[in-house]
Amino acid sequence: MKNEQEIKEFGLEVRRRRIALGLSQEQFAEISGLHRTYVSGIERGDRNPTIDIIFQISRALRCPPGALLSGE
Amino acid sequence: MKNEQEIKEFGLEVRRRRIALGLSQEQFAEISGLHRTYVSGIERGDRNPTIDIIFQISRALRCPPGALLSGE
Repeated sequence: MKNEQEIKEFGLEVRRRRIALGLSQEQFAEISGLHRTYVSGIERGDRNPTIDIIFQISRALRCPPGALLSGE
Repeated sequence: MKNEQEIKEFGLEVRRRRIALGLSQEQFAEISGLHRTYVSGIERGDRNPTIDIIFQISRALRCPPGALLSGE
């Protein structure tokens, strides 16, 4: 992966918004339909999710998908 | 894939911005470091690119990555 820093920032933003909604990783996993260990990997920046997963996450976080990607 | 419509819109936005920069698919492929047939598949919505590739594309299009993802 070339964009490790941006992917880490994506994970931190997911975590920030999940916590702002008062959700545990487990609760968020259930809402999003993702596995809890996958959510954990996303938040740590260890995963390189597809655009399909990004839309799935943004829906669960009730935010526009673009809000999860840091601008330049 | 669950978000086919959103992925199609992503592809159309990539195409729109590539054309606005006056670039052919071939030129854009060279700038972005992606294969021309992959770029073509992205623009048709046939691909499910990773976040890493989205950052790579947004850099080549000189736009924020979030601008490529339709809001809700």
